[in-house]
Amino acid sequence: MKKILAELITIGDEILYGQTLDTNAHWMSGQLDAIGVKVVRRTTCGDQEEEILQVFAEAEQRADLVLITGGLGPTSDDLTKPCLARYFDSEIVMNQQALAELEAYMTSRGRELNKLTRLQAALPDKCEVVSNDRGTACGMWFNRNGKVFVSMPGVPHEMRYMMVEKVMPRIQRAFDLPIIYHKIIRLAGIGESWLAEKIEQWEKSLPKTVKLAYLPGYGDLKLRLTSLASDLELQKKEIDQLVSSLMPLIQEYVYGYDDDSLEVVIGRLLKEKGLTLALAESCTGGYVAHRITSVAGSSAYFNGAMVPYQNELKIAQLGVKEATIVTYGAVSEETVSEMALNIAQKFGADYGLASSGIAGPGGGTEEKPIGLIWIACAIGGKVTTRKLNLTKDRDVNIKLTAVALFTLLHQSLVAND
Amino acid sequence: MKKILAELITIGDEILYGQTLDTNAHWMSGQLDAIGVKVVRRTTCGDQEEEILQVFAEAEQRADLVLITGGLGPTSDDLTKPCLARYFDSEIVMNQQALAELEAYMTSRGRELNKLTRLQAALPDKCEVVSNDRGTACGMWFNRNGKVFVSMPGVPHEMRYMMVEKVMPRIQRAFDLPIIYHKIIRLAGIGESWLAEKIEQWEKSLPKTVKLAYLPGYGDLKLRLTSLASDLELQKKEIDQLVSSLMPLIQEYVYGYDDDSLEVVIGRLLKEKGLTLALAESCTGGYVAHRITSVAGSSAYFNGAMVPYQNELKIAQLGVKEATIVTYGAVSEETVSEMALNIAQKFGADYGLASSGIAGPGGGTEEKPIGLIWIACAIGGKVTTRKLNLTKDRDVNIKLTAVALFTLLHQSLVAND
Repeated sequence: MKKILAELITIGDEILYGQTLDTNAHWMSGQLDAIGVKVVRRTTCGDQEEEILQVFAEAEQRADLVLITGGLGPTSDDLTKPCLARYFDSEIVMNQQALAELEAYMTSRGRELNKLTRLQAALPDKCEVVSNDRGTACGMWFNRNGKVFVSMPGVPHEMRYMMVEKVMPRIQRAFDLPIIYHKIIRLAGIGESWLAEKIEQWEKSLPKTVKLAYLPGYGDLKLRLTSLASDLELQKKEIDQLVSSLMPLIQEYVYGYDDDSLEVVIGRLLKEKGLTLALAESCTGGYVAHRITSVAGSSAYFNGAMVPYQNELKIAQLGVKEATIVTYGAVSEETVSEMALNIAQKFGADYGLASSGIAGPGGGTEEKPIGLIWIACAIGGKVTTRKLNLTKDRDVNIKLTAVALFTLLHQSLVAND
Repeated sequence: MKKILAELITIGDEILYGQTLDTNAHWMSGQLDAIGVKVVRRTTCGDQEEEILQVFAEAEQRADLVLITGGLGPTSDDLTKPCLARYFDSEIVMNQQALAELEAYMTSRGRELNKLTRLQAALPDKCEVVSNDRGTACGMWFNRNGKVFVSMPGVPHEMRYMMVEKVMPRIQRAFDLPIIYHKIIRLAGIGESWLAEKIEQWEKSLPKTVKLAYLPGYGDLKLRLTSLASDLELQKKEIDQLVSSLMPLIQEYVYGYDDDSLEVVIGRLLKEKGLTLALAESCTGGYVAHRITSVAGSSAYFNGAMVPYQNELKIAQLGVKEATIVTYGAVSEETVSEMALNIAQKFGADYGLASSGIAGPGGGTEEKPIGLIWIACAIGGKVTTRKLNLTKDRDVNIKLTAVALFTLLHQSLVAND
């Protein structure tokens, strides 16, 4: 079976100038991968007609399917539509289907259709409309000699809806798709080099049809096995056997598989065990609570959090002893232990997690440098602590601390089995 | 003056498969833009030797400077180094400078140099070493006939440090750089089409040397003016005049300029006025606190936050009246008002902000659908509320609610002037 190759094109000066982070191509890659389309290249180019047309032509040479995001706004700097019209020798005319859908959308939102927005329904006459139920810019589907170009809006939630509801089902009908099978093993508490040494012999024994990749993250790590064979059941079986033979070497570091983030795995374990969680965050400033509550259904096990950013609140609201802070400082094993124990009690939770540290870039001393962070995990009146020596970067420190806290909690949840 | 053109290449199957979000190219774009290097294209390709070599050759044709990230790990799936060696007809040999730096780095971290990590110091003999003080993979600088290729590790904080400390100063020495001048105006509370209609006449009057772009975000919007002339003082003066003539049309929506995010602007205003802030977050689950505390120095005006995710905690810890929740529900103007008033009082802050809503994807009813969110801003015992009707997407709703809360607070801070 011929592999279907795709390229993703993102259009916009704002991306090349570093003013907007493109998360669309990332998300689309994952979606296409899941349906067996192989993304072979991603390209970002600016709002320049000649440049855009050149990128279209290059992509068409290499790929069967070209997905384009961005440049569909109603304003004068948006060039995707005129470029597609020119590339496909097409004229831009008012599309009655698109206009009717646009009017319905605006009515449903209780808004008027102004002059500029109305222009969103003018489309190249050789495209088919891809409806956008979430916004004003509809998508366009072009097919010329079996090569498919699809243009979608750059607003992430509009694009995602359009991909899932309209574009992907249509791709699955338009192409005869093979199957790529991935298995991801997720680990925390071990570095890439150490892991590679541990599994070197196992890695050497992998069959040629299976590819291995190391994907380091912030404080955690993914191992991805990709099977390139063509029978899904056989592929699954082969990968399962390889994973089984790997497990004894790495078991203690594995927290999950595939899409299971640490917060999802923790949530599942808490729910299974009927346990609840509360957080007292100082240096992480609400980030851990945000990660926990980004999981739908987290109210089943998450009671709540306190971010006592000022020391007075650690004392008055969280009940940390003043003497503890005076004697040991807010960034200390003693303070973070009381924080974890107290938040569990105060918020009526089984588990209490706490963080206190110097996230940077200011506030470090010789004794307590930037990147010194204490974390604690309390359950049943007992507390486990860890001291972290992290980086000079505030954002990195907050992220690494969250993963360290999740890992501490995960270890406790698994140890209780 | 000849414009220096750059291309960014990101290497890694994990990126094409959608398993790792590439934030490096985004950040590098912003850095290069600031020193007058024009990024003309960004390309991502997979871990395939022929593919990588093809991308190198294409980029060299179009650009003066090629920056490469990723694929420098010590494991077998990392191909950047062998590809660069082949592309530059170079042999990989142990580099004594790199080895000495690697040994020093490992010693400083109290870690041993294992066999795989040691290989990180083996480099193509035609490159110059770019030191990495933050990790084990050093960078490589190649110069052939005036075309420069630089390879850097994919770990974001290592790459960023290397760019700022080593690579950018060297780029500035190696090329004669022109100046691109940008001015960004940041707005909240108005959509792209409405803004475009408002400023249509002004936009038509822009000189040809000035480019305008609309950059929509999550609940806010940026207008970017780019001057393509060549004299910095003249460019600044011209842009300043254009901004002055624009301001009367859009003043009420403008909250900041250039890199000033809403949380930075709010922090600055709170600090200037000597006011403090506390948060009671329900549906936003700690995300607003995270945004506030991601700003270094936020402890000067941020007292703390409570995330009373369970209704019992809203009552017991935050002092919301049980009757209010029973009568109106947790997602109501009445509850969110009490939350805002009570958190300000309890945490001793001037301002109290609160959120309560149905973030989704579950939990909606006919009367209170997913996306219904109430927010409140209290100061001096008075409270202002807003009802939001947002999307079906949990993540989007959390982000949009944060921006709506920031906008509410910003309006209050500016109105008090």
